[in-house]
Amino acid sequence: MYSIGIIGGTGYTGKALLQCLAVHPFTTEIKIYAKNSAGEKLHKLFPDLVGLVDNLQIESSENVSLEHDLYFIALPSTQALQFVPDLISNDKFVVDLGGDYRLDFEELYMQWYNFTHNSPHLLKEKVYGLADHPSTNYENVKLIANPGCYPTAILLSLLPLLPEFADKISTISCLAMSGTSGAGKEVRTDLLLSEMYSNVKAYNVNNHRHEPEILQQLYKNGFHSPFSFTPHLLPISKGIYVTNSVHLTEEIAKQDFDDLYNNLYQDCHFVRLRNNPPELQWIVDSNFCDINISVKGKKLIITAAIDNLMKGAAGQAIQNMNKLFGIDETVGLLNRENKYVSV
Amino acid sequence: MYSIGIIGGTGYTGKALLQCLAVHPFTTEIKIYAKNSAGEKLHKLFPDLVGLVDNLQIESSENVSLEHDLYFIALPSTQALQFVPDLISNDKFVVDLGGDYRLDFEELYMQWYNFTHNSPHLLKEKVYGLADHPSTNYENVKLIANPGCYPTAILLSLLPLLPEFADKISTISCLAMSGTSGAGKEVRTDLLLSEMYSNVKAYNVNNHRHEPEILQQLYKNGFHSPFSFTPHLLPISKGIYVTNSVHLTEEIAKQDFDDLYNNLYQDCHFVRLRNNPPELQWIVDSNFCDINISVKGKKLIITAAIDNLMKGAAGQAIQNMNKLFGIDETVGLLNRENKYVSV
Amino acid sequence: MYSIGIIGGTGYTGKALLQCLAVHPFTTEIKIYAKNSAGEKLHKLFPDLVGLVDNLQIESSENVSLEHDLYFIALPSTQALQFVPDLISNDKFVVDLGGDYRLDFEELYMQWYNFTHNSPHLLKEKVYGLADHPSTNYENVKLIANPGCYPTAILLSLLPLLPEFADKISTISCLAMSGTSGAGKEVRTDLLLSEMYSNVKAYNVNNHRHEPEILQQLYKNGFHSPFSFTPHLLPISKGIYVTNSVHLTEEIAKQDFDDLYNNLYQDCHFVRLRNNPPELQWIVDSNFCDINISVKGKKLIITAAIDNLMKGAAGQAIQNMNKLFGIDETVGLLNRENKYVSV
Amino acid sequence: MYSIGIIGGTGYTGKALLQCLAVHPFTTEIKIYAKNSAGEKLHKLFPDLVGLVDNLQIESSENVSLEHDLYFIALPSTQALQFVPDLISNDKFVVDLGGDYRLDFEELYMQWYNFTHNSPHLLKEKVYGLADHPSTNYENVKLIANPGCYPTAILLSLLPLLPEFADKISTISCLAMSGTSGAGKEVRTDLLLSEMYSNVKAYNVNNHRHEPEILQQLYKNGFHSPFSFTPHLLPISKGIYVTNSVHLTEEIAKQDFDDLYNNLYQDCHFVRLRNNPPELQWIVDSNFCDINISVKGKKLIITAAIDNLMKGAAGQAIQNMNKLFGIDETVGLLNRENKYVSV
Repeated sequence: MYSIGIIGGTGYTGKALLQCLAVHPFTTEIKIYAKNSAGEKLHKLFPDLVGLVDNLQIESSENVSLEHDLYFIALPSTQALQFVPDLISNDKFVVDLGGDYRLDFEELYMQWYNFTHNSPHLLKEKVYGLADHPSTNYENVKLIANPGCYPTAILLSLLPLLPEFADKISTISCLAMSGTSGAGKEVRTDLLLSEMYSNVKAYNVNNHRHEPEILQQLYKNGFHSPFSFTPHLLPISKGIYVTNSVHLTEEIAKQDFDDLYNNLYQDCHFVRLRNNPPELQWIVDSNFCDINISVKGKKLIITAAIDNLMKGAAGQAIQNMNKLFGIDETVGLLNRENKYVSV
Repeated sequence: MYSIGIIGGTGYTGKALLQCLAVHPFTTEIKIYAKNSAGEKLHKLFPDLVGLVDNLQIESSENVSLEHDLYFIALPSTQALQFVPDLISNDKFVVDLGGDYRLDFEELYMQWYNFTHNSPHLLKEKVYGLADHPSTNYENVKLIANPGCYPTAILLSLLPLLPEFADKISTISCLAMSGTSGAGKEVRTDLLLSEMYSNVKAYNVNNHRHEPEILQQLYKNGFHSPFSFTPHLLPISKGIYVTNSVHLTEEIAKQDFDDLYNNLYQDCHFVRLRNNPPELQWIVDSNFCDINISVKGKKLIITAAIDNLMKGAAGQAIQNMNKLFGIDETVGLLNRENKYVSV
Repeated sequence: MYSIGIIGGTGYTGKALLQCLAVHPFTTEIKIYAKNSAGEKLHKLFPDLVGLVDNLQIESSENVSLEHDLYFIALPSTQALQFVPDLISNDKFVVDLGGDYRLDFEELYMQWYNFTHNSPHLLKEKVYGLADHPSTNYENVKLIANPGCYPTAILLSLLPLLPEFADKISTISCLAMSGTSGAGKEVRTDLLLSEMYSNVKAYNVNNHRHEPEILQQLYKNGFHSPFSFTPHLLPISKGIYVTNSVHLTEEIAKQDFDDLYNNLYQDCHFVRLRNNPPELQWIVDSNFCDINISVKGKKLIITAAIDNLMKGAAGQAIQNMNKLFGIDETVGLLNRENKYVSV
Repeated sequence: MYSIGIIGGTGYTGKALLQCLAVHPFTTEIKIYAKNSAGEKLHKLFPDLVGLVDNLQIESSENVSLEHDLYFIALPSTQALQFVPDLISNDKFVVDLGGDYRLDFEELYMQWYNFTHNSPHLLKEKVYGLADHPSTNYENVKLIANPGCYPTAILLSLLPLLPEFADKISTISCLAMSGTSGAGKEVRTDLLLSEMYSNVKAYNVNNHRHEPEILQQLYKNGFHSPFSFTPHLLPISKGIYVTNSVHLTEEIAKQDFDDLYNNLYQDCHFVRLRNNPPELQWIVDSNFCDINISVKGKKLIITAAIDNLMKGAAGQAIQNMNKLFGIDETVGLLNRENKYVSV
């Protein structure tokens, strides 16, 4: 049984974490730390949680207690740096849902995030927590950098190709679409319903922080071809849809791809390989990542869908917690009491 | 432990039933009966249920087994009549989610539904299963007529006023708004996204079948004033929002209303009395009914919100099952393992 | 030919005004005055207007020129007070799209708007510009208070009943629904797409500023019965839908109502009487107000739909301008070159 | 002055045609021909057109009169074949908005459309009417194949690169997203609002009929690299957004691309080159195609947005009509009376 602290628990991700933890049978205590709403009651912030989660009082993030076993950090860029080094030096488990520890090299933080990293040694110690990838290691790990939402969908789509087919990939073009909750609860004119309703737009073209994060993991696995990534904002609140267009240097049988993906994900409860392109509605509010492969000649199209707040943030973070603690990875994430219908 | 049959299990309501039952700890077996998709696998109809509910085969509704303890019927008007009398005579529990047994008098079926009822004795025997109302009786009951979606929201809003304030009500005007899933999975041009996106319309004005259902329950509780009900279709898929405008014959203190509502619903987990008008998003995908009361002079505005497929259909049906079986009413309905976060 | 100034031209209403005026054949010059974006180019604010409207430079509202014939004012509450008295004393035409001159009595401004009015004499001089109502007078008028969006839809729905049926109305309950653009371009958390998508909520229950505005016009026409008004926010950007539930003291034939409405609106191009409840999509982006009447016994349900930015703001304002200048009321408002298809 | 016949005028495209033609100053007569709704009044099908377009009676498409000068055909695949050869042999102008004449070779119809073409000689005679491309020829032309919606956006995005940069393109991956009106008014379960709301899905992956149409035009202009095209359905009704990811074999300066695009489109009123990725809302309900170019190293991302019913269908068809008749291309398409605001 574990005591949990959520630092930055009043955004969309913090709320999703809380909802998962509230039904998680291995948690004893949960405390939420925040800056602006410290002292307020949880139910004032999230009226829908009345009757589902107890009416906690929000604690001040200026006084984070060291009583907890594990800390989830759901803060904007640079703010995790204020907490992580201290927590790690106190031998706590930390799952950081932001980007402050995802990249391996401090130079990249200057280049892409525009700040000087205060704890570069932890960039090496941390594990990049792509929870559904079998190679992710949880032994003797204290700090998990929870992957970004886009990288989660794209890496789960592409990593099975590597390193085996690395030499047969001509180019990869990733196109990603996200609901607005991916931008957080930030109050911006361009995120008003009046502005975004029935609207679509590409943004941060050739210039999104998730690109170095994706490439870092691809390169580690042998990838060495041209790659582009273009994110789009959709007029919906939740969900990420990714279409990866892979041009191959030679024809490869669909069966070869199917074998690779099936093998890699055979024991992963949350990756569902599909015979048709997934629909966003299949995965919204769940921790699943649905993937489909289509091959025609030298064209390989891989589509994938995840919920940005679950598999792309809180859900994967809980899965990482389960793996850190050696618990079944599905606990707290299936909206069920460990029970299937059987016939 | 109970065996459950769902007759008509392939619509939106049937699916919601299945999702609740799949996490219900008191069910041993679930079978789904349908006409058109008999023989097909559940996962073909509902790809999102892979990994959540086992891949049942749909049984033919022409051969409904008598092995089950309780039957949920989720069929279009008149079709429940083919099953209910036989099941009741075999001493089975039946929760009918359609309208075939909600009204008390066979004449009303000719008038509002345009058919001759085949089992009018059951109209008397059945219980109108407004699960959150304390007066609903479950003793020695076999047949539950599960309330309609609009009547559920409107009756939970208005019944606390009765009979105490019946003589002080001048008029009531109910305005209700529903997402399109309330119309079922029926393929109609006017329900296409291309037609309904960003659209709103009133429909069945002064002529909706839920009106006699609402009035029947209001009259039983002493109501005797002019009443109107106007349903609207909204460009969203899920949820019902109801605004009841009550004109009073004299001023009554807000506290008097608050006392009535608090008293009546104090032990109801799924009715949440609110200090502000509820938002639809507070209750979507839940079994809650959120209610707010606003009083100014002789004007009483009662707003309420429910999920049409949960509290307005499947959720309330499960709650009725729990009550029939003497189980805690929240079992299977809270997306949690009977566990609150506590501090 | 007229020169036009738009003061506060950078919000949703200002933009709609500009789009209408850009195709209006009787305007020679248009200038846009604003506070925050003074000095910027129009196309920077409204990129979609490239190729449709010339790339005007926004003028500072601190130096509004007196060169124009008519001024549209589209500013938040209290800000029109800074411009109107001076413009009127310079003998200019003014159409104020805000609420600062809609009410007749300065006391009401203290009560509902919480400010002391600086030009109460103009409250008497102004004309309440309900453009489609035949009784609205434009002779010798300089100041038009353009009606609010909700009042426009509700008054066009209800005024035909008055004074003839004033004594036969028991109660009226108006329920109104609006898209989010009605709240303007204000940056508020609760107006984010992430918060409002698929959401619905009542707001300002029993406490909306449009209520005294509506009642003022109803009372002037002989209304004297209980009245309630409940606005709702819908998850769409544009449009207002209104359902008026009228309880009558005696039965009145539908034909009697039809005659009244047909008579009153027979020469109004922009009021369309419908045989079925209108759909919001019929009127979005147009200056039409579609109205339907349904009668059953003593229940009269009147539904109406308008575009909040057109008929509920800019469209009606242009119509008022046309009437002030003695131009055909449809000029600039039909997206056509004064030409019907004929066969 | 011209007489116009619309064959298949009761779908979304037919309606858009009618709305444009109704404000077109060079049309004298418009007749609408349809199969299922022949004999009905236009206003019954399109209640929103009351007051905007006269209440035409729909004529039967079994008796299309030869009195018209130009015929727009807006019919499902294979149905234009029944009209076009006869109209052309009667020396009529025809703009076919379907796909029956877009491809140049009859073999492709067997392969992609699964029918044997009845008038292959017209495949050679027709002009592919990409109206905004300067090379499209209208001299001595009778039959225009109006481009598909996706091809319009993709070709306007990519053609400026050709043939100049054909040898420097490594691969192109086109990802396209469309609102549901692109699927027409067809009544399909998967197009219900209940199914598509907040949903997204790729469809016809590696297998969409617009792919040979796009490639045919690219190949004619010297393109010879790997190309993929993946369409997606979005939960909105109108609009197409296209993101073309071009991998280059060497770095090319952004200015070189800008020069090409600016040169090609300098006289095109309806192509707007943008400094930022376009937003769908900039072009909805208009005939514009907005294009943005982003270059980083060897990565070229070209985003474009059009309204699928206007620039992607009816708008471009009217533009083609204007060009066939030697009229200014913007007539009937700018919602304005040939008049800009000027200062």
